[in-house]
This record gives sequence, C-alpha cells and structure tokens, in this order.
Amino acid sequence: MFAVTPSAPGTPVHSIQTMRRKAAGHSGPLTKILVANRGEIAIRVFRTAHELAMHTVAIYSHEDRLSAHRQKADEAYQVGKGLTPVGAYLAQDDIIRIALEHGVDMIHPGYGFLSENAEFARKVEQAGLAFVGPSPEVIDQLGDKTKARTLAMKIGVPVVPGTPGPVGKWEDADSFIKEYGLPVIIKAAMGGGGRGMRVVREHADFKDAFERAVSEAKSAFGDGTVFIERFLERPRHIEVQILADALGNTVHLFERDCSVQRRHQKVVEVAPATHLPEEVRRAILADAIKLAKAVGYKNAGTAEFLVDQMGRHYFIEINPRIQVEHTITEEITGIDIVAAQIQIAAGATLPQLGLTQEAITKRGFAIQCRITTEDPAQNFQPDTGKIEVYRSAGGNGVRLDASSGFAGAQITPYYDSLLVKCTVSGTTYEVARRKMLRALVEFRIRGVKTNIPFLFRLLTHDVFIGGKTWTTFIDDTPELFKLVQSQNRAQKLLAYLGDLVVNGSSIKGQQGEPGLKDEIVIPKLVNRDDPNGPALDTSRPCELGWRNIIVEKGPEAFAKAVREYPGVLIMDTTWRDAHQSLLATRLRTIDMANIAKETSWALANAYSLECWGGATFDVAMRFLYEDPWERLASTFSFAPISNVLLTITTANSSDNAIYDFSKKAVENGLDIFRVFDSLNYIENVRLTACHDSM
Amino acid sequence: MFAVTPSAPGTPVHSIQTMRRKAAGHSGPLTKILVANRGEIAIRVFRTAHELAMHTVAIYSHEDRLSAHRQKADEAYQVGKGLTPVGAYLAQDDIIRIALEHGVDMIHPGYGFLSENAEFARKVEQAGLAFVGPSPEVIDQLGDKTKARTLAMKIGVPVVPGTPGPVGKWEDADSFIKEYGLPVIIKAAMGGGGRGMRVVREHADFKDAFERAVSEAKSAFGDGTVFIERFLERPRHIEVQILADALGNTVHLFERDCSVQRRHQKVVEVAPATHLPEEVRRAILADAIKLAKAVGYKNAGTAEFLVDQMGRHYFIEINPRIQVEHTITEEITGIDIVAAQIQIAAGATLPQLGLTQEAITKRGFAIQCRITTEDPAQNFQPDTGKIEVYRSAGGNGVRLDASSGFAGAQITPYYDSLLVKCTVSGTTYEVARRKMLRALVEFRIRGVKTNIPFLFRLLTHDVFIGGKTWTTFIDDTPELFKLVQSQNRAQKLLAYLGDLVVNGSSIKGQQGEPGLKDEIVIPKLVNRDDPNGPALDTSRPCELGWRNIIVEKGPEAFAKAVREYPGVLIMDTTWRDAHQSLLATRLRTIDMANIAKETSWALANAYSLECWGGATFDVAMRFLYEDPWERLASTFSFAPISNVLLTITTANSSDNAIYDFSKKAVENGLDIFRVFDSLNYIENVRLTACHDSM
Repeated sequence: MFAVTPSAPGTPVHSIQTMRRKAAGHSGPLTKILVANRGEIAIRVFRTAHELAMHTVAIYSHEDRLSAHRQKADEAYQVGKGLTPVGAYLAQDDIIRIALEHGVDMIHPGYGFLSENAEFARKVEQAGLAFVGPSPEVIDQLGDKTKARTLAMKIGVPVVPGTPGPVGKWEDADSFIKEYGLPVIIKAAMGGGGRGMRVVREHADFKDAFERAVSEAKSAFGDGTVFIERFLERPRHIEVQILADALGNTVHLFERDCSVQRRHQKVVEVAPATHLPEEVRRAILADAIKLAKAVGYKNAGTAEFLVDQMGRHYFIEINPRIQVEHTITEEITGIDIVAAQIQIAAGATLPQLGLTQEAITKRGFAIQCRITTEDPAQNFQPDTGKIEVYRSAGGNGVRLDASSGFAGAQITPYYDSLLVKCTVSGTTYEVARRKMLRALVEFRIRGVKTNIPFLFRLLTHDVFIGGKTWTTFIDDTPELFKLVQSQNRAQKLLAYLGDLVVNGSSIKGQQGEPGLKDEIVIPKLVNRDDPNGPALDTSRPCELGWRNIIVEKGPEAFAKAVREYPGVLIMDTTWRDAHQSLLATRLRTIDMANIAKETSWALANAYSLECWGGATFDVAMRFLYEDPWERLASTFSFAPISNVLLTITTANSSDNAIYDFSKKAVENGLDIFRVFDSLNYIENVRLTACHDSM
Repeated sequence: MFAVTPSAPGTPVHSIQTMRRKAAGHSGPLTKILVANRGEIAIRVFRTAHELAMHTVAIYSHEDRLSAHRQKADEAYQVGKGLTPVGAYLAQDDIIRIALEHGVDMIHPGYGFLSENAEFARKVEQAGLAFVGPSPEVIDQLGDKTKARTLAMKIGVPVVPGTPGPVGKWEDADSFIKEYGLPVIIKAAMGGGGRGMRVVREHADFKDAFERAVSEAKSAFGDGTVFIERFLERPRHIEVQILADALGNTVHLFERDCSVQRRHQKVVEVAPATHLPEEVRRAILADAIKLAKAVGYKNAGTAEFLVDQMGRHYFIEINPRIQVEHTITEEITGIDIVAAQIQIAAGATLPQLGLTQEAITKRGFAIQCRITTEDPAQNFQPDTGKIEVYRSAGGNGVRLDASSGFAGAQITPYYDSLLVKCTVSGTTYEVARRKMLRALVEFRIRGVKTNIPFLFRLLTHDVFIGGKTWTTFIDDTPELFKLVQSQNRAQKLLAYLGDLVVNGSSIKGQQGEPGLKDEIVIPKLVNRDDPNGPALDTSRPCELGWRNIIVEKGPEAFAKAVREYPGVLIMDTTWRDAHQSLLATRLRTIDMANIAKETSWALANAYSLECWGGATFDVAMRFLYEDPWERLASTFSFAPISNVLLTITTANSSDNAIYDFSKKAVENGLDIFRVFDSLNYIENVRLTACHDSM
C-alpha cells in the first residue's frame, strides 16, 4: 500500500515500525517493553527487543534529555520530574504510570537502579505487567547475604569458612584454625570497609594478633567483638551465567573470570576463565546450578564465587539480573542472553528456546574492557565535558556496546562513567588479548579523559598476559599506574590552526598570510663529475666514500689513508648541531632519515658526518620520546658511507659505562669515536681508545 | 624506561609501537606488511596485522590522501604519482619500490586491483618479498576460465554442460539435449553481456529458435556461429572458502550463499547456505577441496558454484584472493581468515595454525550487507559528497568493516562505492535476518544517498525471508525497487534552525526573537460540578457520556434518547477540521492521541466528536504516511466515550465499497455514520443505513 509506492528521494515515510512488523512473524502476547534504565544497557535491551519485533519505550531523567538511549527506543518519556538525576530512575510509581499509560506489557530493569529491588518487581507484577527477572520473593531472598550464605551451606555449596559467632578468647579459635588452616583474618564485628581487620599467616603469631585485634577494636569501635574467617590469598573471582525458566529448567552458560577489579568494581572480564582446572570448573558450574534450583531461580542470573590458589571455590552471592559483562558470555556461546530474558519473561521455556545444557557450547575466548571517562592519572576521577572526537574500533571480533559514544555527546557527572563496553573474541586468550589491544589503539576519544591508557598498561602486564590475575591485582600492582598517554596531535594542530584563523599569526614580524603554499620543490644534486649531465639519483644512497676503507681494510688502514691524504678533510656537523640548536627538540629521527640519502651524496667526499652524541639522549628521551639507539641505527642505515662520529666526554663518565656505551654504539653502526677529556687526563682517553676496536 | 615514567596528562609519548611489541611475543621472520589496496580491505588487513604484532604500511593515491586507510597503518606513502586514481593502485613497480625502500617483507593485495594479477605476484616474489596469495602459476591457471573448466572436467567436478564446440545445424544439438535435457541456452559465439542469447524450454521450439539465433547472430555480429549450453533456471550461487598451505594441506571453511546479486555484483551474502540438502553441501565442499588440491592451491581462495533447482551443482571458477564476504565465514567459524593468510604466507602450515578440517566447525548463521553510497532510486547511481551525519549500529552480533564511515568523510567518485560492510550473526537464519534489519534501522547516514532503503526491501521480501533467493532474484523482482525512504528530520530541523540563526525569522510580522521560551503550561480542566474544587483528573479518559447508551442499549435506544433529550446536542468538529484545514498535513495521529483524554472530559456531554472521514485518507496517505485505520482506532481508544462520527458521501462510491468500508470502520470503533448523498437519492442513503448495524 502506501509504504511501498515508488517514492521520490527524500519523501518522508514512517517506515521503521512497518519494517519491524514485517520483520517479525512474532505474535506473542507481549509486544511492548519499557526499560527502566539508561545508557548502554537500555540500548542493549532495545536492540534485542527490536529483533524480537517488539515496540520499545525509554524513560529518561531531565539530565538525560539528550542521551542516546532516548533516541534508540520507539517512544521515550521523561520520568521522575523534579527528582535527582539518579532518583528519577528510582521513581517506581512514575515508571509504572508511564508503562500503563502507554500500553507497555513488560519492564526490563537492566542492571543497577531498580534491578535488584523486590518491591519494584512486586509493583510491576501487581500492575499486571511482566517483570524481566526472577520473582520478588527470590530477589528478596538473594538480597540478604546471610540468608544466601545459610542456604548455600544447607545444600552443601562451599562458602568462605568463618566462625559461626564471635570469638571471645584466642584459644577458642584454635579448632577453627585446625579445621580450615591458615591464613585467617580477624574481623572486628563493628569494622568494615577494610578497617578493623588483621590477617594472620603463622600460627605462632595468632595469640598476639588476636589480643591486639580485640584491644584495637575496643578503642576504635568501643566494642571488642571479633570474628574469624579463612583469609583467601589472591583469590580469583569466577562467576557463572545462569538461565532458568518458570518450570525449573536451569542451565549454565559457562563461567567468566572477573578478577580484575578496582575497589570491587570490575574493570576487565574474560570468558571462559584461563588456567582453571577442569574439575574445578565443573564443580563451580554444578554448584551454580544447584544454588539456582534451590532458590527456584527464574530468568538470567549470575552466581559469583571466589577461587583460592588451591583451586577451592567459595560461593559469594547470586546477582538476580543481567550483568555488565554478559557480553563475553554471548560471544563465547553465541547465545543472546537478553533475548532469552525477554522470552522467558514472556513465558517461554528453555527447551522451547533451544537452550538445553547439551546444546550450549563455547568457542574461543572473549574479553570485555569497560571504557570509562575516568582519568587514571587522577585516581580515576570521572571526567565530564563534550566529546570532541570519537572514533572507535571495528572489524573482526570486535563488538561495541556504547551509549554516548559519538562526537558532540555531553558527558555529565550525574551517572556512572561507563562510555563504551569493548568486547573482543578470538580463538585463544592470547588472540583475544591482542585483539583488545588493537581495538584500544583504534579508539580516538578527545574532549574527555578515558581510562584507555590504564587499560593499555593492564593488558600488557605480564600477569594479565599470563591470565593469572586476582581480585586485588590492581591494588597490589602500582606499576599499572605508570601510564602511557596518547598524543592528541590532530586536536592540537586543529586548535593551533583555529587560533591562527581567528587571531592571526603570532609569529613576530610576519605580515599577511604565510607564503609557502606550493608543493615543496626538492632541489636536485648536481653531479660534480658532469655538471651539465643529469642530476644525481638520490633514490639510493651513495656507495662510495671514506667509510669503505674502515669497513674493508680496518681502522689502521683508515688512519693511514687519512694521514696520507694531501687535502683538507671535512667533518660535517649539521646533524650534530641539529641536536644542540633550536632545532633540537623539533628534528625527529624520521626527519633525519628522510634527508639521509641526499646527505650521503652531498657529503660523499667528507671525512665524517657527526650526527650523534650526548645531546641525542637528552633530546630523544626528554622531548621527542624516541629511542636514541634507534636514531643511530636508522640514520646510519640511510647514510651508509659517510663516517658517523660520536664525541665521548670521558671526564664525567665511569669506565665501564664508557665501555658498554661504546660497544653498543659500534653495534648500532658507529665507526669513529672522537674522544675528549675535559681534564686532558690521557689515561682516560686511552681507556676508551683501547676498546674502540671491539 | 622512558615510556613508563609516570606521565603528566597530555605528555606526548610514542607508545603504540611499544605497546604492539609488548603485545606480540611474535618473532617470525616477516614483520612488516604492505597492503597494495585501499578502503575497508586495507584496514581489515592492518587490523589483523597489528594483532600479529606486525608493522603496517599503507599506500594511497593522490585522491585518497584524506582516506581512512592511510591513518590506520603505521606508515603510509603516496603511490603512482601522476597516474589516474585507479591507475595509482595498479602501479606495480612503484608499489614494490615503496615496499623495498621501507623494509617491507610481505605484500597483501586485498581484492580487486592487483589481487589476481600473476605478473604482480611474480614481481613481488622476484623482489624477495612474500606475496599473500597463491603462486603466480596458480593465479595464471585460474585466470583462464577455459583452463579452469577443462581442469574441473578432467578431475570429475561438474561444470555447466555445453557443447564442446560450435553447433552448425539444429539436428546436431539433439544429442546434447537428449543427454542434458531442457531448457538450454543458444549463445552466439560473438555475443556477450546478455546479447545474442536465446533460451529454449520446449523441444518443439528448438528448431525455430536455433534458426532465428543463427540468423540474428549473423546480422548482429556478422558471424552466425552458436554454442549450446544447459540453461540453469533460477540457480543459486554457492561458494566455498578454502585455506591451503604450502605442503598441500587443504581445508574448507564451509560455504556461503551469494545468490543475491545485481548485475553479477553480490549485494547480500549468507553463511551457511539455507535449505541446502546435506548431500549437496557435502558434494560441493568435497569438490572445492578436490579442485584446490588439483591446482596446488596455497593460501585463501574461494571456489564458486552454481546450484540448480534440482540441487545439482556446477563449478564456475576459483577466486585466488580474499573476498569481500569473507566476514560471514569468519563469524560462523570463529576463524580469522586474514590472519591465516598472513601466517601461511609467512610459512606456517595449517596444522601449526590448528586449522585441521575436524577442528573447523560452524555456529549459527551470518549475513553481510554491503552498504554502498549508491542511490537505489536512481538506478544505483553512485552518490558523492561529504557525509554530514554518520551513526552506525553496534551491540550483540554486529560487526562493522568500514573505511570512510565517519562524519566529515568525503565520498569521492573515483573508487567503488562500498561504504561499510555490516555483518551480523545469530543462532538461526531468521535471527540473523532480523538482526540485520535492526542494524540497518540504526544507521543514520546523511549527506550521501545509500542503498539502505533497497536493503530494507530486500531483507523483508518473502523470498529472502524464506532463504530461497537465486542469482537473478533482484532483476526478476521489480517490487524491490518500491523503496521506503528514511526521513532525515533532524538534518532538516538543523538546516531550518541554522537558517533562522543566520538570516533571522522569515515569518511575516515577527519582530525579534520568538516569545515562547518557558515550558508549556498545560491548562487544567475545571470540574463543572464543583468549579472551586480540584481540577478534573485527565490522566484517565472520561467514562460517562452519550456513547454509553449506544454501547449498552443499542442504536435504537440511543436514537430514542437523542429524540427525547430536551436540550441542544453538540457535535464537535475540531478534529474533523484538523483534517481539512491548514493543520491537515501537520496534525499527526499522535498529536490527536495526546489530547484525546483531555478532549474526552472537555466534551463529556457532547453528542459526538466528528474526527474521521474522507480527508483522513487523503492526509494520512499522501502527506503523513500514516495508517488512517490506525488513526481511527488509536484516537478512539483514547476518547472512549464521545461518539465518533464519519460522513459517508454515497453518490460517488459503489455499494460494496461502502459496505466494506463501513464494516471496517465499525470494527475500528466508529459508532455513528452520517450519511450524505449529493444527489439526495434516498436509495443510496438506505443502502448504507441498512448495513450500519453490522
């Protein structure tokens, strides 16, 4: 009908809904979904909902009125007018009002906000809507950590061992230590957040540590009650993705390793876990299923465990919602977890969805990095502002879940600083790790700081390369904070040009526009033997010169030839001066390499080309961030004839430094050393000279 | 060392190479790769090369000096100065010069350009560089279609049957037809590109057709020689991805269905092929391997086949290079084909790479769409210009291989118009198809036309939905060109606002800035029963009114009540006027729905609300592109009490049209019809009236 008439270009047609309906075939009872969340997870759900041919509804706070998630839904309504930015997304009744007013029949809570709020889940159900998640009773039960721990112990799933109640005297802890071993941690009942804790590793220290802990607890919290728990050294955080339907069918989608955390916030996640013995993996997966079945779990959830260095696992909690890192499980299994969530909430069973345990397999490895607008150099302080440049990665094995990832996006301080989740997958852990590095290099984000420099360090650290991280790895590894910065050259150049256009040149004496607008004319070198003939071919370096003698006949023959030469021999110092003059911090190795071939012809008859010395180190390392040895090797390789010369100042250097330095210089192609001693102390000069032929 | 010192923010550090080296572990003999290509495939290769810790070199023509592929390599050099845009990338010697000058040790040709040029491959090898592809001899052999066909026949791989030479008399073709059956195609030896061909489906027609073909060929080409070939009706194009190493190990990575073509150019590709009987699939895969082994194939290649409707397959050719659509094979197998290419060229064997046939499995389905800057409404004429807006899809199962995909990119007319390859994967063909639609909807590309509207039509066509396309499907299906256009509202609004800011308002009589800057105040409806009490709650519609009588007691009781009513009854025509006034093309269904609840209270006592009629169709279908029935149903659902009224003009309508129209109107909630006949012909009015109670 009207939607298919041949349309003139530019004719506006309301087409997306028509297309989605056509795409559908879907005719379930639930067709309109509201996501009670924001940012990337809202978009994540909208995307799958659209694939299921559902109609989508976004809610947004006043502060989010320009946010991307609003645009990715079919309809969007402001929620929680007059409330705080976060409060708006917690406005349960207002969310349900919006849902009812607009014919919504299903609410997805995302993660965070109301996703673990049993009261909200109950209200949603009471309003006659489907809640995408487990029942309110299950959410209640899992929200209480003590209840969850008790349940785990009841069904034989291990938890981190601890005394069942307070320990009054140090002798009373003995049986606990005998049963569970050392180290243990003594925790003040009133302590928390790291305060009032004392780790004991040796039995001999226990009595003393216990008594100190009690007296410290008394003075710090006014209460000397302490508990004792097994202390896990460098544990790993392993979690299991669970899917369950209303009939009690429960499957796992394998595990994720989320050990890389900063202040209990996951930073990088890997699936499946590396170096996890198969029997440990199987035990963890089985325990996750056992727990889910025991609570009557429904929909997607995650059972979290710690694994100690002996490979023993301990249950922590079940998160009754979708997790940020669900993407890596989707990559290794090929299963759309959000689609499963929605379909289960709509009444589907796992077998109907083809999600039986034997049908769920894994392939390769996946890694997710959370790219945030946090400045790692400023203790991960969130940065805000307008994104000026945004380029992201793509291609083989790269998946991006972004929200405000575009140039012009305003990063506000009101919400968490997650900018984009970058998920990669590859055949092995190492392939995936490299792919992530490749992807991170491709990102160009300007205008706000990001944690990408920190992620670089992390992903290239030997512990991460080995796949052997633990939960406090970041805190235990200060060298991770020695950051590499990206350069932002283009933005600086743009700012400079903009300044020039608006404010004119600030170069003294310059009037009007700069003159050089033509292509650069590279002068030709006249052939000395035939000044009227064709110019010298400088596409290859000159192959004849004084250096041939030293290379072919050795230093002595060279010295002899020099002495016998009747004329004046020239040492050109242009390149050395380049290090020491105004050009020093501007002349890069590549600039020298670019003129090396021409130089080799122009100075073909010269005695030497002085091009490297102490200033090279100063300039290369302090200003240009180049490798001075690379400069030597690469300029030399392009000027292979002229002798390269280095001045060694012996007076202020130790002998072995001079030996090793000279040796490395020779390896990198240096021919002649000019030795200089400011005290004219001949012994110093001799020391160097006798190693010169190495 | 210097790269890891704690850096002040913004400190420039040359870091990417350091990072890559650290990422590597790779220490093969080949470490620097040049891609003799441009656009997305160059970037595709650079990405994998970086993952392999190689150093990358791009070449670019003068016209490509701002292209993205230049930026994605570590080094980039202009090639073919002074040549044409395409000629620059064909400048074999210049490419090799660049490679040699910059220490390159491997050249990847991509697809197109020099990728199937044996001479280039030979020159690369002669220069001491590795060529990523098969040997020059194999390229030569496969480039000659006759040789390839002869080889296939020799080793027993079926080809499309044809007479071995010219056919002189129609009787001579009889034995061919007896052996291979009908239909056949008679091809003039001198014809080509569709000219000089004649399909014969019935044996009785053959003699006549043959003689006409010969005489036509004589007059058209001056040569009456003809050949006869089996004509394949609606064949599918199925191709097999092959990988082979230098030792002769050869594996397949399953098949792709590339039937969706336009003028022999693939448009959409699917892997694996749908509805392909398992024995046919196995036979094709086996023949592909057989062919590759027979020619001594090395590296990645693709064996192409046609499959007829009987499931018989016929070899066409082997493409000795990477293909555009290799991405879908990567998605279903999880194998990085370009990585394999590079590693094989560096000397690796398939077993070393873990690529044994039994280790290669497939998962789910993948679809690739080639998004081009071609205008499907203008016969796919390439469009050029600056991309003003570029937003692309992301999230679960979406892979993008782009080159100039960013705002500000200049699309030039010099090269093919491929903008981005969108590849999706999902558990089933249907999931993948819907995912592609979802992804296409997410694209926002402004400034240049794209083929996305065409892809929408294609992916929602029943033949594509059924996974049963054939090679001439696009040409055979003219309705695919009835396009749906996207709206580009934001760009129009931006242009309008920009005009306003620069040129001021063009509204007559307006002076200064528009006044309305506050939030819109929505007036409250006073409660008539208690004017001093709280305003009416319009969050729900009014539930009392004249309509209750018609719904609860039927039309006769309603008519009686109306007649008995002593006062004047009001019919409000505001909404009808909205269709017929200046507002007509501006008042959308949603605007009416938004005020429907308030209207139901304001007009609670009214006799009726006239809101729908002939003009609805005109406006909705010609201007707003809305469904007029949906307008009726949705405005009615928000104003459930007031009677809704429609004027039927009987004089110019046929009876059955009026019956069916009225019936559908009642189904969508209309209560009262006002019947009108311009000729005052009472019979017409009666006809409608007697169907009114349906």
